[in-house]
Amino acid sequence: MMASGATASGEDSLIARYFRPIANDPGAFGLGDDAAILAASGDEIVVTTDAIVEGVHFLFDDPPDTIARKALRVNLSDLAAKGAAPAGFVLTLALRAADDTWLAPFARGLGEDAAMFGCALLGGDTVSTPGPLMISITAFGRVAPGRMVHRRGAKPGDRVVVTGTIGDAALGLDILRGGAVATDLADDPTAQQVLVGRYRIPQPRTALAKAVRDHASAAMDVSDGLAGDLAKLCDASGVSAAIDAPSIPLSAPAAKLLARGNVGIEAIVAGGDDYEIVCTIPEDRFEAFAQEARLAAVAVTSIGTIIAGTSIPGFLDAQGRAIPLPRLSYSHFQDSGV
Amino acid sequence: MMASGATASGEDSLIARYFRPIANDPGAFGLGDDAAILAASGDEIVVTTDAIVEGVHFLFDDPPDTIARKALRVNLSDLAAKGAAPAGFVLTLALRAADDTWLAPFARGLGEDAAMFGCALLGGDTVSTPGPLMISITAFGRVAPGRMVHRRGAKPGDRVVVTGTIGDAALGLDILRGGAVATDLADDPTAQQVLVGRYRIPQPRTALAKAVRDHASAAMDVSDGLAGDLAKLCDASGVSAAIDAPSIPLSAPAAKLLARGNVGIEAIVAGGDDYEIVCTIPEDRFEAFAQEARLAAVAVTSIGTIIAGTSIPGFLDAQGRAIPLPRLSYSHFQDSGV
Repeated sequence: MMASGATASGEDSLIARYFRPIANDPGAFGLGDDAAILAASGDEIVVTTDAIVEGVHFLFDDPPDTIARKALRVNLSDLAAKGAAPAGFVLTLALRAADDTWLAPFARGLGEDAAMFGCALLGGDTVSTPGPLMISITAFGRVAPGRMVHRRGAKPGDRVVVTGTIGDAALGLDILRGGAVATDLADDPTAQQVLVGRYRIPQPRTALAKAVRDHASAAMDVSDGLAGDLAKLCDASGVSAAIDAPSIPLSAPAAKLLARGNVGIEAIVAGGDDYEIVCTIPEDRFEAFAQEARLAAVAVTSIGTIIAGTSIPGFLDAQGRAIPLPRLSYSHFQDSGV
Repeated sequence: MMASGATASGEDSLIARYFRPIANDPGAFGLGDDAAILAASGDEIVVTTDAIVEGVHFLFDDPPDTIARKALRVNLSDLAAKGAAPAGFVLTLALRAADDTWLAPFARGLGEDAAMFGCALLGGDTVSTPGPLMISITAFGRVAPGRMVHRRGAKPGDRVVVTGTIGDAALGLDILRGGAVATDLADDPTAQQVLVGRYRIPQPRTALAKAVRDHASAAMDVSDGLAGDLAKLCDASGVSAAIDAPSIPLSAPAAKLLARGNVGIEAIVAGGDDYEIVCTIPEDRFEAFAQEARLAAVAVTSIGTIIAGTSIPGFLDAQGRAIPLPRLSYSHFQDSGV
């Protein structure tokens, strides 16, 4: 556990300088101890952990503050999808060197997001690595006992709902990697910026956590591609789904690329890094859910219906024909044949 | 968060095969969801996080099951030093490839230790890295509200106590690296084995957690060297300490190396990876503490006394002379000048 003492070892002074100022929860003990305290106060603690790795989830020349924000936000996205209110997080930082010009903006971004989302830094560990940077965060949320929203629970007839827009982050990553999308949008730097921003800085739907908790029969965050993640939710629930592909909410740049034929919907629904919520809402709850979502200023879109069965969810075009999906989601180990 | 679904992406099948069988706590939901539930049951949750990195905390050719055990045990050591009972953990595993011959024994060692220490796997994340293997664990413990043992709290007159023996792991690492200790003990393979075992498989003093909670005024685990860690405890408590170096408990191999002049006590007290507990016990509590330690079958040794002042703790030889300590502890970033 990171802790800053008077014996100024490298790790200690690094922690004191950059992370102690943002660890302002009383349970963090100013990062001056070996462990933190998380008070449950009668709630259950929801625990989630997600790591981001240089070259996979972020690129070396991404601004350090956006890397920090992404590391925290991918975890906040999980908490929101489970209906939990943020309660704190711990951080493991694997660095090649303790570089002030990188750490200062990293800690600033992390601190700003921790404050904005009400999720305090409770502790962590810094380790040295000759390999890629890696930030692993374990985040905690609170729910009343038994109220966490699960992957299982979706029932035939429930609406399938997603937040925000789908596919942007994968397109943004393609731009950063100098892929075809960069060429396709060479005439539209603003659109490029929007998509890159969506890759670098996810928008966790923390504001929607209560509505999800109150109304969703099942929910998860979309991190590995809508098609694959919805398939996981359906599998856990023992159901299938019929998705009306033209209803899938797209950003203006994504819609433009789709309209021009630069990308197909099958790529949009299999791209990773969306960090939106997909949830299922019983029909008689949908109006109340949509109303709460409006109050929370989170866009929600009904894209289809849960149906009986165990087949992979179908994505249907405007004519009701099934769209072939060569892959459902992004997998880190897919290429290694495992 | 690791979760295994029907959509067999590489990560999912890896999790299902190796980790689901050992995630048998109801709050883990069989690794089938995006988050776990940790029930507090009126206790406070103690949170600690420590990562181990290939080439730093373990070596590539260490047996995978011992790597898993070390990753968990360094965290259990922190919990024990804080007086907390293990409650569960989450795991981030950064791998170059999903290699069955490595993962199978890794998961087996992890599962065996999780069962032995009553600390269930609640979830985790697997990521791909081209760099060194890294295992980051966040572990949870339970204490009655307000009962976590802190670094601060030591008072002049308290005894300074350590568990087990000090310095073995650093000597074991030197052997694995083919350093001078390997030559010094070329005649004694058993001694080499003992020291290497202490490096590879720490013995968290979980059995002593209750005695620490009941009697210690301050405590922490010794992970970066006794001298440096005791200095941190003293600094947090606003005190100093006088340590009788000849009282420091040594294993037979360490004692042999010291007696032969192969290593000095200054190296013993600045070596890392001990994962013993250093704690301070008020004099009138010492007998009761020692009795509880005997019942828990954990060796404890009184090595000195807390004194007033703010100087770095003194390590005194048999003649009462201060032993110069060129360094207090091991620091990952020390060489990079931070």
